[in-house]
This record gives sequence, C-alpha cells and structure tokens, in this order.
Amino acid sequence: MSMVVQKFGGTSVADLDRIRRVARRIKETREQGHDVVVVVSARSGVTNRLVADARALYPNPDARELDMLLAVGEQETIALMALALHAIGVPAVSRTGAQAEIVTDPEHTRARIVRIGGGDIQEQIAAGKVVIVAGFQGVTTIGQTTTFGRGGSDLTAIALASALNAGLCQIFTDVDGVYTADPRVVANARKLGEVTYDEMLELASMGSKVMQSRSVEFAKKHGVLFEVRSSFNNNPGTIVKEEISSMEDVVVRGVAVDKNQVKVAISDLPDQPGTAARVFQNLADADVNVDMIVQNIGRGGVANLTFTVSIDDAYRAERAVGSVIEQFGSGTVSISDRIAKVSVVGVGMRSHSGVAASLFTALAETGINIQLISTSEIKISVAIDVARADDAARVAHDAFNLGASEAT
Amino acid sequence: MSMVVQKFGGTSVADLDRIRRVARRIKETREQGHDVVVVVSARSGVTNRLVADARALYPNPDARELDMLLAVGEQETIALMALALHAIGVPAVSRTGAQAEIVTDPEHTRARIVRIGGGDIQEQIAAGKVVIVAGFQGVTTIGQTTTFGRGGSDLTAIALASALNAGLCQIFTDVDGVYTADPRVVANARKLGEVTYDEMLELASMGSKVMQSRSVEFAKKHGVLFEVRSSFNNNPGTIVKEEISSMEDVVVRGVAVDKNQVKVAISDLPDQPGTAARVFQNLADADVNVDMIVQNIGRGGVANLTFTVSIDDAYRAERAVGSVIEQFGSGTVSISDRIAKVSVVGVGMRSHSGVAASLFTALAETGINIQLISTSEIKISVAIDVARADDAARVAHDAFNLGASEAT
Repeated sequence: MSMVVQKFGGTSVADLDRIRRVARRIKETREQGHDVVVVVSARSGVTNRLVADARALYPNPDARELDMLLAVGEQETIALMALALHAIGVPAVSRTGAQAEIVTDPEHTRARIVRIGGGDIQEQIAAGKVVIVAGFQGVTTIGQTTTFGRGGSDLTAIALASALNAGLCQIFTDVDGVYTADPRVVANARKLGEVTYDEMLELASMGSKVMQSRSVEFAKKHGVLFEVRSSFNNNPGTIVKEEISSMEDVVVRGVAVDKNQVKVAISDLPDQPGTAARVFQNLADADVNVDMIVQNIGRGGVANLTFTVSIDDAYRAERAVGSVIEQFGSGTVSISDRIAKVSVVGVGMRSHSGVAASLFTALAETGINIQLISTSEIKISVAIDVARADDAARVAHDAFNLGASEAT
Repeated sequence: MSMVVQKFGGTSVADLDRIRRVARRIKETREQGHDVVVVVSARSGVTNRLVADARALYPNPDARELDMLLAVGEQETIALMALALHAIGVPAVSRTGAQAEIVTDPEHTRARIVRIGGGDIQEQIAAGKVVIVAGFQGVTTIGQTTTFGRGGSDLTAIALASALNAGLCQIFTDVDGVYTADPRVVANARKLGEVTYDEMLELASMGSKVMQSRSVEFAKKHGVLFEVRSSFNNNPGTIVKEEISSMEDVVVRGVAVDKNQVKVAISDLPDQPGTAARVFQNLADADVNVDMIVQNIGRGGVANLTFTVSIDDAYRAERAVGSVIEQFGSGTVSISDRIAKVSVVGVGMRSHSGVAASLFTALAETGINIQLISTSEIKISVAIDVARADDAARVAHDAFNLGASEAT
C-alpha cells in the first residue's frame, strides 16, 4: 500500500459538516488501498479570533505565548476529525505537532523545521489507523510549542510526506489547481495537469496565491511530489514536481498578475559606486520586500533608480528612501499609484528566445504601455497601469496560446 | 518568599475582562512578596461547547480524542492569562499539563495523577516569573494527553502545591468560602474561618458543592493546606486543614442539605445471610451510588431494606433491584418521591454524646418526620420530606447555635 499525506486547510474544515465531508473523502482514499496521514489546519476564523483575543489583552503579544495560544486551533481540528472518522467506522488517532515529533528551532511564530521524528505514526499506520496530525505547529528540543507562520500547514504536510517517504502529498484547498491564468479574468484559462516547482513558485508568489513559496521550496529541496486540488469536488488537480514530461515543448506555462504593487522612483541620486547598495540596505533594514528593480543613468551623471514594492510596504519604503537621500544630500523620491505586475512563466523559456518579443509586441498592439521590465530564467514581468492588468493577462494568455492547446 | 498556588475556575476567567481582573489579583499577591504559581480552568462554556461538537460528530466519542479536544480549553486560558500579566508588567510564562510534567495513568477523561515532575517551574519562579499551569490535564508516560474529569483543576492546584511544597494553595471560586449552612436558606449562616478535611468532605459532598471530594481527599492525604475564597472580592475565605484550633470546643460545624435523593424501599426479602450483599452487588454493577442504608427485620421472618440514591440513579436502581428480586423469588420494591437528606457535620461530635438527641428533638418540635437515619463519626444525616428541608436546615442551625457564636 502506498502512503498518501492529505492536507485540508481551514475552509475545508470550517464547520462540523465540512469535517464530516473531509472524513468521507479520507475514507474513500483508504478504500482505494492507501495508507493515509492527514494534516489539518485550524477551522477558518479560529486563528483570527485567538489572535484578536491576544491583542486585546496585550497589543504586542509575546511570541511564545502566542504560539501556545494558536496551537489550540489545530489541536481542536485533529480531535474533531478523528471523531468524524470514528463515526463512519474508520480507525483514526490524532497527533499534535509535538507528538508527531515535528522539531523546530525556537523562533516562535515563524519557526523552521529542523527534524521530523514522526513519533509513532508508522506504528499507528501499521496498525491500520489513519493518523491526523496538527498542521502549522511543532515543538522545540526543550518541549516548547512553536508555530510556522502563514501557510504552515502546507509545510507540515510536505515535510511529513518527505519524512514518511509518502508516495504523494495532496494539498486540498479552495481552488481546483494551478491555472494558466486567473479564470475570473481570462475566460479560457485552463487548469494545468503538471507544473514544475520553479513554475509553481513564480505562479504562486503572485496573483494566484495557491500556496506560500516556503512550502514549495521545501518540496523542491526534498523532492516531494505534491498535488494541489479542490476539497469541494473530485476533479484531479495540478501535480507539482521537478521535471515534467512536456517541458521541451511548452515555452510559457501561465500568466500571473499582481495588482498590489506600487512603483518607487528615485531620481538624481549621485552616480557613484555603492549608491544602489546603500538604498537597498536601508530598505532591507526597514523590512521592505523589493520586487522589480531598474537602474539607469540620467542626464548629467546622476542615477535614476526605480523599483516596485507591495502596497503594504509603500510607507516604510518611502521613509527608508527618504533617510538615505538625506545622507546622500541629493535625490528625490516619488511613489506611484497602484500598478500591476504581469508575468509570463515557464521553464521552457530558458531555451527559447523570442518570448520577450512576443509579449511586448502583444501588449503594444493592445496599446498597453510598459513601465518596467524584469526577467528571470523562467519569467518575464512587466509593470503596467493597473487599469489595463486584466487586458494584459488576456492578451498574454492568447499570445502564447495557453487556452488553445493542451499545455501540460 | 513563600510560594502560593492560586487556582481560578472557569467563571473567574470567563471573558477578557475577568482575565484582566485575575491578572491584577495575581500581581497584588506578588507585590505582597509571594512567588505565585497559577492554575486556570477553561473559560466557562468552552468545555461544554467542545463536548457538544464532539458528540455531534460521534455520540459516544473516544475518550482519548475527547481528552485531546478538551485540553484545548485550558491551553487557551493559560496563554491569555500570561498575556494579561505581561500587559501589566508581570513576567509570566504558561505551561501545559505535559510541560509541567503532570504525569497520569492512561485512563482518559478520568485520569489519576501518578507523579508531578514540575518541569521547569522552579527555575521559572527563580527567574522571577509567574508560572501559569493548565488545570484539569496531564500526560501519560508515553506522551498522551489526559484529563481528570470534574473538578480537575482543583486537583491540579492541590497536587502542584504538594509537589512544589507551596506554603498555601488558594482555590478561588464563585462562593466566599464554606458556610455553616446555605446562606440562601439559613439567613444567619456564617462563613467558617477553618474546617478540617473531613468536615469539608462531608459539607462539600452535599448541598454546598464548593469542591469535588477527590481534591479534598488528595489534600488530606498529602497534607496540603488550602483556602477556598471568592475571586470576586478580597474577603478571606475558609482554610481547610487537618486539625483546627477550636476542635475541642465545637461539636457541630455546619448543616448540609441534599435535595436530590430518592428513597428505595425493598420489602419482604428472604431473611437469610447474603441477601443484602446480593442487592448491593447488583446496584454496584449497575453503577448506582447508594447513600443512606437501613435494614430491619419485618414480621414473619422477612427483611426490609431501605436506602437512598441520587435521583439521577433512580431508574438504574429500580432495574437492578428488580432483577435481584426475580432471582430471590420474593420481595417488592418501591421508589419514593424526591426526599431531602439533612446532615449535621463536625469533627467535635466524635467526643460528644447528645448530638443526635439534640437534632432529633429539634426536628420533632418543628413537626418534621424523620424517615431514615444514618450516622458516621463526624456526621448525622436524616432523610425527610423535601418540602421541609429548608425548615430542617434552619432548625438544626439554631439547635447547635451555629449562627450565634464564633464557631471557628
């Protein structure tokens, strides 16, 4: 029998009826001949309620106590899920992060997994039981409860799949899988049968927030094959793995859009070595994540530097740049209105020229002005007016025939 | 500095405001120069909600999973209490039952404590912190979460006080302490300054349900001095200990009333050795707790047996007696309407005659008919018409001058 790790997020276990539905799905998986390890999140809303209580008591709550509090959410779900399985005749047992020996560093609220012992999971599986493990939580070597931060339950599932040598890890979520573009925007967007880790990272880190990058990176590093699929239907999802069969043929896998960026433009900086370094060091110190970066030399030997940041970081970025300009004694900073970043992603473009040209041409023909361009090995991104973002996604999707042919 | 263990029940921590109020009280205790270890219950309503969810999924939930679920309630409170203390500048750290090394047997939902290691409580105290321990829960030697059943948080507090050699254990509750009688019934009932463990056991196991017997028994066995007091005011409560100073002088300490009993009368049983044994073995097998028992020989060599049981057990008692009567081939059973058991309690009555006479005389003068009598070393109980229970309590209270003189 092959082992499957199945992860169900907060919306999939939000109430007792949904917990029952997930239990039936687990039972079906078992009846197909699989050993099943289940990872669950807190019921949706529970974590937010706990955080709200904590902040009401103390606006800047101690991370250790916050972890003690938050771990409650998943512990509730695992016990309820075990009972829901018992109710339909499936032997099941729950395990906290500590009991599953998910050992982490002591960085509370953003702990990193250092080792997974598994506790007695293998013995329980051998005894014919489904094991339900609390996601999002671990334990330090001295027995302190830790949590992993956003997307932590995905990480638990993928790390457990790795530690237990499971044949497959299924991430059940509220979307059907990974699409060539956002189906709400691009009418003929198609679900992809397979994507590579790198493509998933590029697609997931933008508009189609299926998973946090961290879990995908862990899967890539440890070679864990996983599937993203819906908990609300039985459609096959998207398999994510290292290399996919059609890799040679497909240039662009999908189009991603991020409408939550602003453009920060710094002009008239002194054009001397280290200027950019000083700017970005200041931004890093201010905990600002910088995305696309463009530098060019303006008239009169001064440098112009432009980059994009998440709109949430705009204020901190402005302050950080302001202070560095003061130190330089020259320069002005301006922050744009919200812009959109549109990216085409595909492992295949490594070996194909002409992708950039095709994209730029298609946008130009539709009258969409490109404000910034940045590229990586498997991605080309452009910053454009946010009002044209959906148009740009549709145009790019058509330009690479993503809706027409079988892209997987 | 002397160490105090303070226990706060579910109503004392029901919402964030009450948690803040408890935090201030803990701070005051610290400012009086004490090291403080705090034990808290789940917020009132939480445990009931969790049990309701469990039963909705599976009417007869697995005890192990139920424990996993219920432990959540106290874990939530400890973290919130720690944060409430941080908010007023008190260093504090929370510990689950497992982290406090409260080791139990594996009898889920009614586990018994076998050992308290304490974890790092002493080190945290030495580092100047208040330690908040989750009540009601422990851990087996193989890391399974267990709970103690009703009154479990009191047990945690008393057991911790014993293990940590605390000078005092304070049980904060929604009553002021132990009274000579129920103040709602007996207008001049007085709060007792001190009672012995045995008196507490007799008083608490009846009408004035301040604490479960189990915790008092543990305290008695391990010599843990504790105080029962209100979490809603600063009045001194009642100290419970082995021997109290006024023991020689006071005959009766208090009057307790239990209005939830019925009388089971079996007549015309064969009068032969083993009859009563068979009856009570059957009742024990049916999990019926029998309270007062009277047997006498009726006319014609047949035995009559009468006893009282909690009204909740009446049906099971009737069935159990019915089956034993069938085996005997003779006997009839009748179950009374609800009756009241009124008890006078006091360690002093061991060495004083005349207590029974005084009680019976007082009841007779008030026209209250006694249906059954049972006695122990420190208690005389009578079963009477439930309609006269309050009258009986007042008469007995007066007969032993409990309201008039300083009884402590």
